[in-house]
This record gives sequence, C-alpha cells and structure tokens, in this order.
Amino acid sequence: MNDLELQKMQTTLSNAIISALPKNHKNKEINHYYELISDYPKRGGKLIRGILLLLSAEAHAGKWQDALDVAVGLELFQNWILIHDDVEDESDERRGKPTLHKIIGDARAINVGDALHVYMWQVLNNLNLPKAFEIRDEFLQMIHRTAEGQHLELSWIENNNFDLGEKDYLEMVSRKTAYYTVVYPLMLGALAANKIPDKKILALGIDLGIAFQIRDDVLNLSQNDEYGKEFAGDLYEAKRTLILVKLFEQASKQEEKELKRILNKKRTTKTKADIDYVLSKIAKYNVLEQSQNYAEVKAARGLELFEDVFKILGRPAVTAHMSRLLESLAYRNS
Amino acid sequence: MNDLELQKMQTTLSNAIISALPKNHKNKEINHYYELISDYPKRGGKLIRGILLLLSAEAHAGKWQDALDVAVGLELFQNWILIHDDVEDESDERRGKPTLHKIIGDARAINVGDALHVYMWQVLNNLNLPKAFEIRDEFLQMIHRTAEGQHLELSWIENNNFDLGEKDYLEMVSRKTAYYTVVYPLMLGALAANKIPDKKILALGIDLGIAFQIRDDVLNLSQNDEYGKEFAGDLYEAKRTLILVKLFEQASKQEEKELKRILNKKRTTKTKADIDYVLSKIAKYNVLEQSQNYAEVKAARGLELFEDVFKILGRPAVTAHMSRLLESLAYRNS
Repeated sequence: MNDLELQKMQTTLSNAIISALPKNHKNKEINHYYELISDYPKRGGKLIRGILLLLSAEAHAGKWQDALDVAVGLELFQNWILIHDDVEDESDERRGKPTLHKIIGDARAINVGDALHVYMWQVLNNLNLPKAFEIRDEFLQMIHRTAEGQHLELSWIENNNFDLGEKDYLEMVSRKTAYYTVVYPLMLGALAANKIPDKKILALGIDLGIAFQIRDDVLNLSQNDEYGKEFAGDLYEAKRTLILVKLFEQASKQEEKELKRILNKKRTTKTKADIDYVLSKIAKYNVLEQSQNYAEVKAARGLELFEDVFKILGRPAVTAHMSRLLESLAYRNS
Repeated sequence: MNDLELQKMQTTLSNAIISALPKNHKNKEINHYYELISDYPKRGGKLIRGILLLLSAEAHAGKWQDALDVAVGLELFQNWILIHDDVEDESDERRGKPTLHKIIGDARAINVGDALHVYMWQVLNNLNLPKAFEIRDEFLQMIHRTAEGQHLELSWIENNNFDLGEKDYLEMVSRKTAYYTVVYPLMLGALAANKIPDKKILALGIDLGIAFQIRDDVLNLSQNDEYGKEFAGDLYEAKRTLILVKLFEQASKQEEKELKRILNKKRTTKTKADIDYVLSKIAKYNVLEQSQNYAEVKAARGLELFEDVFKILGRPAVTAHMSRLLESLAYRNS
C-alpha cells in the first residue's frame, strides 16, 4: 500500500460512484432528473468515509477491490443525506456551490434525494459478498442512528431549546455524525473482507467521529478559503454545537439572554450585526480554542484505541495510512 | 376465500405494519420521533395495494401469510412517499388530518419520511422467500418509476408548463401512480408466491392505475365528506390532471390566459374567487364527467385483460375479490 495505490483507490471509487447512477433518458425532463441525481456526487467530496472503508477491508486481509461496491453505497448514503440535510437546515452552500434546493427548489431536491437513496439500495442489493446480508443490516442501523441524531438537533432548534449540556451534545453528534463517519466505515470494511468487526471499533469510532464533527464546527466559524460551506452558516442555522454549549456555560445572564434572542430568530431575519455579536462572545470566552482542544483530546484517545485494535491485524502499512487519515479529522482545513 | 378471511387478512396486515416500526426509546425526543414514524401508518389507509398483493399471491397458488412482509414493505413505501409528497406538494390534509409537515415542520417531516423509508428496507432485507432478491429488485424499479413521475409533475409546476397533452399526462401518471398502485402489487404477489409474473400485468396495471389516479383527481374536485384530503387542493397545488388537460383543450384563448394566471400563482396567494373561477370553467366544459368517463373506459379495458390473465390461474374466488377491488378503483368515493 503506497501513495500511488492510494490514489488509484480514490480514482476507482470516484468513478464507481458515478457508474452506479443513471444516465441518458430519451424523455428530456427525466434526463435532466438523472443529471440532478449525479450533481452532488460529481461535485467531488473527499471520499474520506469510502477510503476508510476500503483501507479497513485491506487491514482485515481483504482486497479493497472486493469492497468497492460497499464503499460506493456508503458514499451514496453521504450524498443523499446531504441533499436532505441541506433542505432541513436551510443551508446555502455545499462543496463550494449553491445547495441543490437553492438551484431547483425544495420539492424536487427532496425527490432527488429519495432517488439517490434508492440507487444506494440498488448497489447494496446487488452485492456479491458472503456477508451481504449483514452489510445491508449495518447500513440500516447506520441510517437509523444518523436520522435519530438529525431529529434531536432539529427538535432542539424547533423548540428553541438551549438547555443542553455536553452530554446532550455528545449523544446527538455521536448519532448524527460519528457512526457514519468512522464507526461504520471501519466495521463495513471488516464485513466486506468477510471478518467479524472488533467490538472496540464502536468506542474508538465515536471518539474520532466526535472529533471530526467538532473540527467541522470550528472550521465553520474560522475564516478559511478551502472550506466549501458558508462562513458562520451554523450560527444562521442555530446549530447546537459544542462551541455554543461552552459559550452558554460561560456567558453572563445578560449575554445569554441576548444570544438566545439572536439565535432563536429565523435564519432570514438574522442580520450581520447579530452574527457579529455572537462571534464577539465566542472570541471573548475563547470557546473556539476550547472546542478545538476538546476535539484533539477525543482524537488522541480514539487514535490510541485504533492502534491497539488494528495493530494485531498485521498490516502496518495500511494501518499507517488509516492513522494519518483519522488523525487529520481533528486537524483538517476543509 | 370468503369475506371473513378477507377481513382477517386486512387486520393482520394492519397489525404487521405497526409491528415493523420502532417503539419506546428511553430518550424522550427519540421516543417522540418513533411516534412520528408511526403517525401516517396509524392513520389507517385503505391498504388497497397491500391487499391486492396478498390476493395476487393467493391467486398464484401461494399463501397470503407468506407474502405478508412484502405487503408490509409496499404499505410502508406508500406511507413514506406520502410524507415526502405532502411536503413537496405543500398539501394541507392527509387521511382527514393535517399533513405531517403542517404539524412538525418540513425539516423533521422530511427526516421522518427518510426513517420510514429505511424501515421499509429493513423488512425487505429480512425476507425469507426464494425470490427475495427479485422482490427487492422490483421495489427498486417501482420506486424509481414513482420518483420519476413525481419529478415530471413537479417540473411542470415549477416551470409553469401547461403545454401538455393527454400523452404527457398519461406518461407522468403511469409512473407516478400506476406502477405502485396496480402493476407492482400484482407482480410482487406473484413473486412472493415464487412464480414469474405474466408480462401482461404491466399493460393491465397501467390501465387500472391510470383509472385510479383520474378517479382521485375527480374526487378532489367533488364535494364529498368521505374524502380525506382538502376539497380542490389539486387546484391550489396546480396539479397537472387530466381534468386540466381537457379544460385547456376546450377553453377559449381568453379563458386560457386567465386560467394560467390563476394556476401559476403561488398556493398561498390563490383566493377562493380564483379557485371558483377555475371550478366554473371546469363545470362549463363538463370536464369532470369527461375525465370520469375516460377513467371508466381505461378501467374496463384493464379489467378485461386482468380477467384473461388471472382466470387461467384457476382460483376463481380469489380472482373475483380482486376484480371487485380493481373495479372499485374507478368508482370509489374515498
């Protein structure tokens, strides 16, 4: 496993994702619909989850080529859930371009997300692997956890609920992000290699997945050209991040009241001055740095457990690649 | 197969649908989410599609009990797609109550629809039938066709397109409704009974499915207490129905202009006077009756072919039940 092979893996995965999607229909409208289905996948995400899955298959003495369709399924999952999340969160940008619903409206974007969801199951139904049933079953669990996490976050926003501690945040974000970002890529790679995944993958994957999400939240509030989403979008959407949890822990009663007043406003009625006020308090209490440190501690702990679990598989070169990838979750810039 | 057994079938199916869904979670918010997932299924639809599927399994010399999970999958499909369609069409009522997104907002309703979609695949992944793979594959094709039909209709509305003939309408409505309402229930019943479905099911199912949708469109514009959706909702949503196609064929240039002006207005800005104008033109040109007649011709043709195909299966009592059910599609009152 050298850098060249890693690059080949990435290109192969990227092509396989597009190959799984429909193209060319004689009805002009349906042809356009096919193009919409491929829109997010063609914007080219980083494929971190798919690559992790392929490397996990290799680490478990499988061939990454045999795990390819499982990785395609995982990446298609990521794409359809992003289309729907973008509608649900009223997000403006995705991968450096306007979100799909900003281009074609909510109605068709929801429908295109459903279509992509079905193309994901099409890949999974056609798997030709000994553990195909188990793999589909893990996809079911993964999507259940993710949708539950999304529900928690949306309910807190809808109910203007800021009465949240670190524990609530960790429960929400474990479900919403950690499972599908780290836990399941590692487990599905093992299953694709016809192995039973080590139970410790759950704990290490949750630590690393939480680190990933916190880093994402920190990046959203840091000026950065590489980042593909709008600056401070999370504040416009009033996302319940660790940053806000820590801010509310430290703010004065007076500040808390003003922060709530601003964050509870509808997205479209929030002014730049509103957002600047929240940013000034974030700076005052230094909660970005506190959150970044928190992410790094989680990442270090998760990484240590990862080394323990994967070392005994006896594929040091593969594991080294995975470590580097996982380490970057808490430090990436985009 | 007598009426008592048919009733037992219906109760068993209804209970099996609820049993396939999650209940009781210690986290209060997730518990509420579970209740939301069961909301539409518990409102108790007519289960026409599921019952047709079970009867088709019996007609194909299978046991309806063995086809039960396939019918559950089909009914779950109907429920999740209705949640999303109601958001996409901005519908106000479903089964005599406010639509889900009117109760909890678009964001969480979309997410709940996704969850229900996944519970459908959970049932299908656990099928213990010789043709489980083929059944899942037919579900994939069914959902693809339905979503394509939905895209056609949404695009016409979004693009203010009224330049549509009978042929366009039939293509849209075949995809959007006929496949999942008649074609696939009959085919899936055969597969659940481990038989290869007769190819003629496609043609007869499309005729009968179209009849069903036209009847639905006619009911929407007829004053009727049994009907669970809002009166004239289709006009507020500017749905492209056969009624409108026929109206535009016959209206004067002057009327056409006014009809377009009204129908292209945003739903919330349409007044009762606007809707009354459209209704008056529908009455003037008698297009409700023309559409109803069209549905009845389609139904008669589909029913004739149905008798041909199912007669040779040698289960006259079952086929008689199915005929009655299919016949009612073009004449039902709710």
